[in-house]
Amino acid sequence: MSTVKLIQYEEASAEVRAVFDDIKKTRNVEDVNNFWKALANHPDTLKRTWQTLKEVMQPGELDALTKELIYLAVSIANKCNYCVHSHTASAFKKGMSAAQYQEFLAVVGMAHETNGLAIAMDVPIDAQFLVGDEE
Amino acid sequence: MSTVKLIQYEEASAEVRAVFDDIKKTRNVEDVNNFWKALANHPDTLKRTWQTLKEVMQPGELDALTKELIYLAVSIANKCNYCVHSHTASAFKKGMSAAQYQEFLAVVGMAHETNGLAIAMDVPIDAQFLVGDEE
Amino acid sequence: MSTVKLIQYEEASAEVRAVFDDIKKTRNVEDVNNFWKALANHPDTLKRTWQTLKEVMQPGELDALTKELIYLAVSIANKCNYCVHSHTASAFKKGMSAAQYQEFLAVVGMAHETNGLAIAMDVPIDAQFLVGDEE
Amino acid sequence: MSTVKLIQYEEASAEVRAVFDDIKKTRNVEDVNNFWKALANHPDTLKRTWQTLKEVMQPGELDALTKELIYLAVSIANKCNYCVHSHTASAFKKGMSAAQYQEFLAVVGMAHETNGLAIAMDVPIDAQFLVGDEE
Amino acid sequence: MSTVKLIQYEEASAEVRAVFDDIKKTRNVEDVNNFWKALANHPDTLKRTWQTLKEVMQPGELDALTKELIYLAVSIANKCNYCVHSHTASAFKKGMSAAQYQEFLAVVGMAHETNGLAIAMDVPIDAQFLVGDEE
Amino acid sequence: MSTVKLIQYEEASAEVRAVFDDIKKTRNVEDVNNFWKALANHPDTLKRTWQTLKEVMQPGELDALTKELIYLAVSIANKCNYCVHSHTASAFKKGMSAAQYQEFLAVVGMAHETNGLAIAMDVPIDAQFLVGDEE
Repeated sequence: MSTVKLIQYEEASAEVRAVFDDIKKTRNVEDVNNFWKALANHPDTLKRTWQTLKEVMQPGELDALTKELIYLAVSIANKCNYCVHSHTASAFKKGMSAAQYQEFLAVVGMAHETNGLAIAMDVPIDAQFLVGDEE
Repeated sequence: MSTVKLIQYEEASAEVRAVFDDIKKTRNVEDVNNFWKALANHPDTLKRTWQTLKEVMQPGELDALTKELIYLAVSIANKCNYCVHSHTASAFKKGMSAAQYQEFLAVVGMAHETNGLAIAMDVPIDAQFLVGDEE
Repeated sequence: MSTVKLIQYEEASAEVRAVFDDIKKTRNVEDVNNFWKALANHPDTLKRTWQTLKEVMQPGELDALTKELIYLAVSIANKCNYCVHSHTASAFKKGMSAAQYQEFLAVVGMAHETNGLAIAMDVPIDAQFLVGDEE
Repeated sequence: MSTVKLIQYEEASAEVRAVFDDIKKTRNVEDVNNFWKALANHPDTLKRTWQTLKEVMQPGELDALTKELIYLAVSIANKCNYCVHSHTASAFKKGMSAAQYQEFLAVVGMAHETNGLAIAMDVPIDAQFLVGDEE
Repeated sequence: MSTVKLIQYEEASAEVRAVFDDIKKTRNVEDVNNFWKALANHPDTLKRTWQTLKEVMQPGELDALTKELIYLAVSIANKCNYCVHSHTASAFKKGMSAAQYQEFLAVVGMAHETNGLAIAMDVPIDAQFLVGDEE
Repeated sequence: MSTVKLIQYEEASAEVRAVFDDIKKTRNVEDVNNFWKALANHPDTLKRTWQTLKEVMQPGELDALTKELIYLAVSIANKCNYCVHSHTASAFKKGMSAAQYQEFLAVVGMAHETNGLAIAMDVPIDAQFLVGDEE
């Protein structure tokens, strides 16, 4: 149960429909996901979010599946249940195999454990990691 | 400033030295990172954590850099500052280019934004995402 | 499904009823929210939490709606689903318009994105931000 | 110590300088904050982030200070130390009084407490909060 | 609705059944929890996770209930709903009384509040807390 | 570097001094921690927070060290660096042995790992965990 109405194509404004049409065409799908229907209550945010997502997620120096796995890893650590489901589904659609998913989950689990341990002990950063500017 | 002493090789027990030696050999480095020196206060956790990390991070269905990027993505979303630095350094060591890092950060930033929006609106999960067992 | 029974008014102790009565009177509502019914398993925490909430949320230097938006922003970033729903409802009750909610969500989304980016790059704090005591 | 070099105006490309110039003009400041100097390693993300921030943070249905307090509340709950400092400074610059900051912190503290309690007990969402679509 | 099938004993491989059998014997239960059925899609992670959990959670310098309360406290702060339910149930099974649960929740709520306040003000660490190595 | 001045006893108001005096007497220490000096900018929050902490942390159904370990576990998972240091120091002061700290950290690390895995797979809650009211 969302905090907003889900805007269906039929009831959407022309401005929203234009975004929905571009999502459907870009992704070659018959309908947009609920995330976009929820965001359609906020047309400016809808347009800006879709435009950025479209640019950021297109294959470039990193391939489409790698980008999806990064997105999914962030979503898990950020505890966004909707995002976990949508990006797991998307990763499978982009070619993730069951064996890759198994390895992905093992990395995610391990990262959570060492994150917790490093925070618990407040491990000082090694000098060799520091390549940026002095604080 | 950590909550524990960093155990140096010279003062380490034989049990801890054996793990340090394996880390140095596996990674072809002259010294282990501070994380392992901190964990050396807890020899059982040190051994288990290194053994698991070694297995989980070796190339398999996913290549070494992809695994590192997943690890880094989790560490950022979990706000572990030590982990952000160590895994950024590690990703560069495993071949991440400046252009790939740029794309990686764009995906990470975007994921945080849509995570926040999906949680804020509590978007209902689309039926087609659901492949698992009924709750 | 909560981890505790929800205590209804009819079955509540006199101590709990007194808090429930004050909540109903203060908020001019017929029944208290589930949060208070759950907390009623812990009468001390119930009393203390309600007393503090009542004081903290009354209009003062900041008006009631601004306080509610701050509360909602924290609840979203803390991924508390119950709190997201209760404080969204409360913000509307305190006068938030649909257009204000749209702007609120845009700010929340943007904040999540730049939080993620600043953590990922570990941006050093600008000297001019520092007004407090030396660490 | 950041994971990237901070790009100073003198060494910046024309593309980056154009963004820096717009930030300085819009905010009427002599130099941009470190966040933008760090982001300048990623010109596309720099441009997009600044453009969105500029639009989202301008006064509209919510005034500038209210938006800043929402941004700060998210940054605290997301544990972004850089963001806490920059948005606290920004809130004072936009007129937050010491007394308002005191009330702001009280709300933030209270929100964290009830977030923790509601998550701990998994309080079921009240029927009256639900205005959106069926899940 | 999980992202994976829950593997039942009847359909499990011999490798998975061996782990399930050890869980059932160790805990003296008739069936394993859904967590293990979900993890059974990833036999290596299943084995490693169970082996580590078994070792880590056995009574030692800390008794079984204290360890369970620590586990539950982490799960609440990490906003893992499944984990909140499973470790609350487990704590009761290990002897937590209703009165202890009430005190536990009060500590958890208070910790969340002061965590939020300390992060909001970026309180400098007191010199006397620092027992570890120089950063 | 905090966002507020640390209020020293000498410059504190009578109202603040009364709280400082009670902290010093209750804990038998010569000076209060920085957290209280920071909070002293907000006398109402200072008084309320200290009063609640004093009540909540006194030994009751759970002993003082167990309560401290719960507080520390929450602080780690909430990534509050100040709180990690202050409550680690406090746990040692209340009698935590080096061996107990080792076991504590192992539990904390393990909890983070299974939290991450359970969220990643969105494991459905087992029917037997559900003792509360229907949602």
